[in-house]
Amino acid sequence: MHRLRLWFLLTLAWVLCGTAGAEPVAGVSSPGGTLTVTVSLNDEGRPGYAIVRRGRPVIAESRLGFLLTDAPKLERNFELTDSSTRSVDETWEQPWGERRYVRNKFNELRVRLREKSALHRRLEIVFRVYDDGVGFRYEFPDQSQLKQVNIADELTEFAVVEPATAWWIPAGEWNRYEYLYNRTPLAEVGQAHTPLTMRSADGLHVAIHEAALVDYSSMWLRRVAGQRLKASLSPSADGARVRRTAPFTTPWRTLQIADSAAGLYMSDLILNLNEPNALGDVSWVRPFKYVGIWWSLHLDTESWASGPKHGATTENAKLYIDFAAENGFRGVLVEGWNKGWDGDWFADGSAFSFTEPYSDFDLAAVAAYARERGVHLVGHHETSGFIAHYEDQLEDALDLYARLGIDSVKTGYVADAGGIKTRGADGAIRYEWHDGQVMSRHHIKVVTEAAKRQIMVNPHEPIKDTGLRRTYPNWVAREGARGMEYNAWGNPPNPPEHEANLVFTRMLGGPMDFTPGVLSLVGRGGQPIQSTIAKQLALYVVIYSPIQMAADLPENYAKYPGPFQFIRDVPVDWADTRVLNGEVGDFVTIARKDHDSEDWYLGSVTDENARRPRITLDFLDPRRSYSAQVYRDGDDADWKTNAHSIVIETRPAKHGDVWELALAPGGGQAIRFVAAAPTQ
Amino acid sequence: MHRLRLWFLLTLAWVLCGTAGAEPVAGVSSPGGTLTVTVSLNDEGRPGYAIVRRGRPVIAESRLGFLLTDAPKLERNFELTDSSTRSVDETWEQPWGERRYVRNKFNELRVRLREKSALHRRLEIVFRVYDDGVGFRYEFPDQSQLKQVNIADELTEFAVVEPATAWWIPAGEWNRYEYLYNRTPLAEVGQAHTPLTMRSADGLHVAIHEAALVDYSSMWLRRVAGQRLKASLSPSADGARVRRTAPFTTPWRTLQIADSAAGLYMSDLILNLNEPNALGDVSWVRPFKYVGIWWSLHLDTESWASGPKHGATTENAKLYIDFAAENGFRGVLVEGWNKGWDGDWFADGSAFSFTEPYSDFDLAAVAAYARERGVHLVGHHETSGFIAHYEDQLEDALDLYARLGIDSVKTGYVADAGGIKTRGADGAIRYEWHDGQVMSRHHIKVVTEAAKRQIMVNPHEPIKDTGLRRTYPNWVAREGARGMEYNAWGNPPNPPEHEANLVFTRMLGGPMDFTPGVLSLVGRGGQPIQSTIAKQLALYVVIYSPIQMAADLPENYAKYPGPFQFIRDVPVDWADTRVLNGEVGDFVTIARKDHDSEDWYLGSVTDENARRPRITLDFLDPRRSYSAQVYRDGDDADWKTNAHSIVIETRPAKHGDVWELALAPGGGQAIRFVAAAPTQ
Repeated sequence: MHRLRLWFLLTLAWVLCGTAGAEPVAGVSSPGGTLTVTVSLNDEGRPGYAIVRRGRPVIAESRLGFLLTDAPKLERNFELTDSSTRSVDETWEQPWGERRYVRNKFNELRVRLREKSALHRRLEIVFRVYDDGVGFRYEFPDQSQLKQVNIADELTEFAVVEPATAWWIPAGEWNRYEYLYNRTPLAEVGQAHTPLTMRSADGLHVAIHEAALVDYSSMWLRRVAGQRLKASLSPSADGARVRRTAPFTTPWRTLQIADSAAGLYMSDLILNLNEPNALGDVSWVRPFKYVGIWWSLHLDTESWASGPKHGATTENAKLYIDFAAENGFRGVLVEGWNKGWDGDWFADGSAFSFTEPYSDFDLAAVAAYARERGVHLVGHHETSGFIAHYEDQLEDALDLYARLGIDSVKTGYVADAGGIKTRGADGAIRYEWHDGQVMSRHHIKVVTEAAKRQIMVNPHEPIKDTGLRRTYPNWVAREGARGMEYNAWGNPPNPPEHEANLVFTRMLGGPMDFTPGVLSLVGRGGQPIQSTIAKQLALYVVIYSPIQMAADLPENYAKYPGPFQFIRDVPVDWADTRVLNGEVGDFVTIARKDHDSEDWYLGSVTDENARRPRITLDFLDPRRSYSAQVYRDGDDADWKTNAHSIVIETRPAKHGDVWELALAPGGGQAIRFVAAAPTQ
Repeated sequence: MHRLRLWFLLTLAWVLCGTAGAEPVAGVSSPGGTLTVTVSLNDEGRPGYAIVRRGRPVIAESRLGFLLTDAPKLERNFELTDSSTRSVDETWEQPWGERRYVRNKFNELRVRLREKSALHRRLEIVFRVYDDGVGFRYEFPDQSQLKQVNIADELTEFAVVEPATAWWIPAGEWNRYEYLYNRTPLAEVGQAHTPLTMRSADGLHVAIHEAALVDYSSMWLRRVAGQRLKASLSPSADGARVRRTAPFTTPWRTLQIADSAAGLYMSDLILNLNEPNALGDVSWVRPFKYVGIWWSLHLDTESWASGPKHGATTENAKLYIDFAAENGFRGVLVEGWNKGWDGDWFADGSAFSFTEPYSDFDLAAVAAYARERGVHLVGHHETSGFIAHYEDQLEDALDLYARLGIDSVKTGYVADAGGIKTRGADGAIRYEWHDGQVMSRHHIKVVTEAAKRQIMVNPHEPIKDTGLRRTYPNWVAREGARGMEYNAWGNPPNPPEHEANLVFTRMLGGPMDFTPGVLSLVGRGGQPIQSTIAKQLALYVVIYSPIQMAADLPENYAKYPGPFQFIRDVPVDWADTRVLNGEVGDFVTIARKDHDSEDWYLGSVTDENARRPRITLDFLDPRRSYSAQVYRDGDDADWKTNAHSIVIETRPAKHGDVWELALAPGGGQAIRFVAAAPTQ
């Protein structure tokens, strides 16, 4: 970009943000000119930034900096040493994902600051400005004045300009992300996890999150006043919330900015801001579908603990393996296979063995039987959040799986007894939040140890997803929101709007192991699931994950062979993804192209309201004809009164057709578009 | 109270709070039956409490408990061991205060809880229920299972029932309390300091605060959702926010509850919940008025630092001593007397000496001159928040003052460079918040060391006031809000509503050294103060402190001898106090009876609006007649256009007279009611 035009834009942007006492010192616009970031220093030498979109202020001048536990805060008395810009436009290929090729096109601004006061400490801030969002991070250069950096808290702010409605879950309340989403004015947010998604009156959508959360504490957002949000790092029992040695960089603070909810989801900002694959050849990472001994545990008809109800028996596992083999599922999860589930495991994970099965579960025999039937066991490590205990056994536990051909593991961090348990430098137990620096390190330790053994990892009660699957492609999914188990015993269970909330909040971070497909539509003691049967199918397309469970019991699938066919057919890896329509918390329709064929799949879900969204089949290949296998809500379907009403029908489809989808209250629709050979 | 009636009230209260899944296990009502507290355990054994006032829920079931850094959280799996109640009705005498005698009348409920799970830890919760409020605290009994208590955070919640407007300042933003007050819906509070004051649509006033903050971290309030507030303890660079050894008790969490703003201020809850005087004979603690070298420093016409503008010279100090002696002020403050003010003292207090004066200030000679003239120097210790450095010199510094007859000290904790600086166990510098456990200990250390030498203490940039003046009567005042200096250089300066906010928020905690009386009504560079001259006088009655500064320059007082007479006359110790009217942030009228005579004094202040509050002189003794010396806004007075317009007149007054006060925009009124001998 010409220097002159840049400065014109900057000046314009600055005038629009109208900030007194602060002078713009640098800035950059996105490649298409949609977004402009300006960096300023105020009369105290305090750095700030602001964002303008097409002439309209989005983020007013917002503070940058740090509080330190052992040194003066890094926040003011700065002067600009220099700034530089660069442009990147590249396309990279994902080993698996929502789309095969990802374009990474941005302009970057690097600002180098130096304190004018005695310490003369240096700090760099890097902004990457895309047409659909902004990422920025701090870089602590190597310097003798600030070698060991002990961060008390981050001072980064996000001063949102337009009055907005926000969708959010509270942070700092509980050691999990498993909340119903709040929908409130942004001015009523308390302290929230990210992604926090907001929409202004005229439809501008902004989601604040972070990318590449590595060796750092998670960013919570606390509302300071009005619509001004401030980073608040997840606390540590150790005092400093982050301890690092310079040089290092913080995670990227991200703002996805779009005209529509669909636009938010289509952004690849989070992935683009992560580092490329660090694992080399990852052809051993394979998206898959799985079944397993799980829903029965949440129904309380079987138990994790040993005894007469014990679910994880050799015999029971073999039944699931047979079912998987017969229906084309690669994986079989068995929870409760190992010693430690007896007693109050919620309160104390120290009894867990990660290598010793219960006596009624012959792990080696089950694994061998699975291999024989072409199925892979999915490993399971519930830690109860006692990560020190888990790490003591981690290598042995993964070695065991590797020996048995178990190439994926679901981990668990239920930590309800007071937090994640680790050991301090003094060996004493410390309770930590599930998303502090300790856990960001722990998860990467597990993922990299697993990668050495070609094992995929799927943590439940995890740290939030910040796109690290790009760097560690064996980190295939995670939980990190209310999943299907809340429909077994949740009080309340997930409401019909839940998944339409998830797509535009939690799912902006990355894949979720939601475990859909409970076609029986009943939880523990007959509690109804707030969904139609067609919606259960649609979730396989709507809630992205490269691993997808068919969560219901085999005997329930036997009752619904028609709908079950879609679960058998739907892929878990995609060449492309299109969000056709949607509003946060109301409804969404997503089409995805199979990675390995020319077929397309579509999922549409609604909240408690019936809807008839119109879609145009412009994603289909114009050179082909398609046979659409439609799984739609019956005309009388309603999650409350007639949840199992479904129509399964086949109709022709072609590029450009306009369809109206009929979604029942609490309903959905799933479609497989089977491609014929090209006509030309 | 009869057991039967109690349980009827409890059940009623519980039904009104309508909480599913929790069972009331104990409860108690206030002596007059106005307030009822119920304690519950839910189906997870989680304790909660609720408050009902005259059949109306005020606080819905609210969580209790703790997160610990090194042990499972103390929050659930509890069972009730037993509960007990007792009643107290006593009256105690203050050595100084807003009123001489304080009635302490409450019913107490003690609840003993024990974990059903493996650890079997015990926790007691004590509620003291007054007709005008509730205090509760946790008591950690001596027990081997939980001897060293390391608190990560407190889980105490306050679920406010009625939609309310709140007055609050943000917490966690800056190492001070010096903010303009926010007035927002309670549902828009972010994170706030206490006292947080709220008013519901039908006029119920509730203020949440704490009492007896001893060896503990300050309670911030964070809004979790809706109107549910949660305690969030001020952080520590050391990890645990509180480290204590059992047995110990937490500070009292307090709710003052009244039908009016006046009722809130009239409550003695905070004082009553503090421990009695721990210092023995405190006859040496004397309320006083003072002048000093201070306003000139904020005007920047003189400097703290040495050089040609240095304010604290021997000669200058003697002029102030002469002025004090001639006008009946006991104290003379001299800031900038000691070495350390040169250079960037805001960023680093290590240069401060607390015993060595600058060469142009002969401390011994000045102190001797003061004694000769019947005046006492007021000591000054600005620490720049480097408390480790201050503590190193503390005893020497106080010994020096004691030797020189300096019997009060103003301390300062400007800590803008990143927080309070202390040293950890390893000797390394740690930056802390101004209101964490470290500072609660530091302030009591200074106060008790000073008491040994019969020295009064007045900290600026302090920890908040929680009524500890009852236990340590030499802790005479403190700052802890925006004071007069913001009218010198504040951007913006204090608005006209500021003091009407303070009375019903900050002042609920205790005395503030606001330093009123700037009759010139101009700040630095001629910036106007947003007050009439009459309002400056009214502040001596409205903003309570046993030490009051006449903050303006002597030459300015020479210009306004009429108004100055009120400042000369007004006492600083009171036999009684009555709030006659007021609304938070709008206006307030307070009458106080002199501790040492039969005279009454009245102050009334308004915000930017003119008002004509009617008052009834029912506080006057019906057996006496009075001559009222009235200092009222002139008919044409207005802080913007005619701030110096004042009428000083004398009129007769007697018990039962109804007067209408005329307050100009930004104005006020001060009255001295001089009592004649009784007529009977």
